[in-house]
Amino acid sequence: MGVEIERKFLLASEGWRGQGIPTRMRQGYLVADAVRTVRVRIEGERAVITIKGKSTGASRGEWEYEIPMADATELLDGLCEQPQVEKIRHRIEHAGHTWEVDEFLGLNAGLVVAEIELDAEDEAFEKPDWIGQEVTGEKRYYNSSLIRMPYAQWQDKP
Amino acid sequence: MGVEIERKFLLASEGWRGQGIPTRMRQGYLVADAVRTVRVRIEGERAVITIKGKSTGASRGEWEYEIPMADATELLDGLCEQPQVEKIRHRIEHAGHTWEVDEFLGLNAGLVVAEIELDAEDEAFEKPDWIGQEVTGEKRYYNSSLIRMPYAQWQDKP
Repeated sequence: MGVEIERKFLLASEGWRGQGIPTRMRQGYLVADAVRTVRVRIEGERAVITIKGKSTGASRGEWEYEIPMADATELLDGLCEQPQVEKIRHRIEHAGHTWEVDEFLGLNAGLVVAEIELDAEDEAFEKPDWIGQEVTGEKRYYNSSLIRMPYAQWQDKP
Repeated sequence: MGVEIERKFLLASEGWRGQGIPTRMRQGYLVADAVRTVRVRIEGERAVITIKGKSTGASRGEWEYEIPMADATELLDGLCEQPQVEKIRHRIEHAGHTWEVDEFLGLNAGLVVAEIELDAEDEAFEKPDWIGQEVTGEKRYYNSSLIRMPYAQWQDKP
């Protein structure tokens, strides 16, 4: 098991644009309940199945396996909950850390969040000036929540 | 995707005993709903994650990936629905087909079923004389049902 320690932020400005390497992602869920999620994701030329446990603070157990692209397409089209999440992930290096800026598409268009993966919950990191309010742990920003309550339907958008 | 075509039977006698190669299995489910199951299984020295679609007749889409044993133990202990299913599978060759006789343990002790995997729904096969009534498609015999309604709790045992 890996442990995923991740903090999530809104964006304060458009200053991040054009800085990173974009990868198109499409992902769906075989299950997303209070205890675990099983996600199928196509990220660029790679496909993975990822199992995650319950979040405690910014941490979460994670198990990931690469699978054939054809399998991922079958699982996303035929077996995952609908709709799926589509987004462009921009990987941006800043002061020794990688920020992942996710620009959502489709029913979640307009939503942009930035994540940083850490080695410890209390690890220090420098925020680029385009990083805004922290939303770590806010359930409505979970990708698995966005399939049920997409950004287009939010009453109080940030 | 593979397609699993499988027929399931009760046992008419104890004539199968001592004939096959036994493998101890322990399995749990990350999800088991009307549309899909995601199963984690330790079978002897091997561990797999298996995704199955909805059954139509004796057929079902199936995707299987081998995973590290340590991961399987973590997933079974920490993330799968409880309780799990434990059984001894006896693989018995008969007239060109492999029969899998599953002898359940724990809360399902006393239940024994035999399965045959086929290449087509109408494929002919010869039944050994210890094969009894067919129960293909009967939901209570699904391994994923046995975690919720174990054999010990059945009112009308066969």
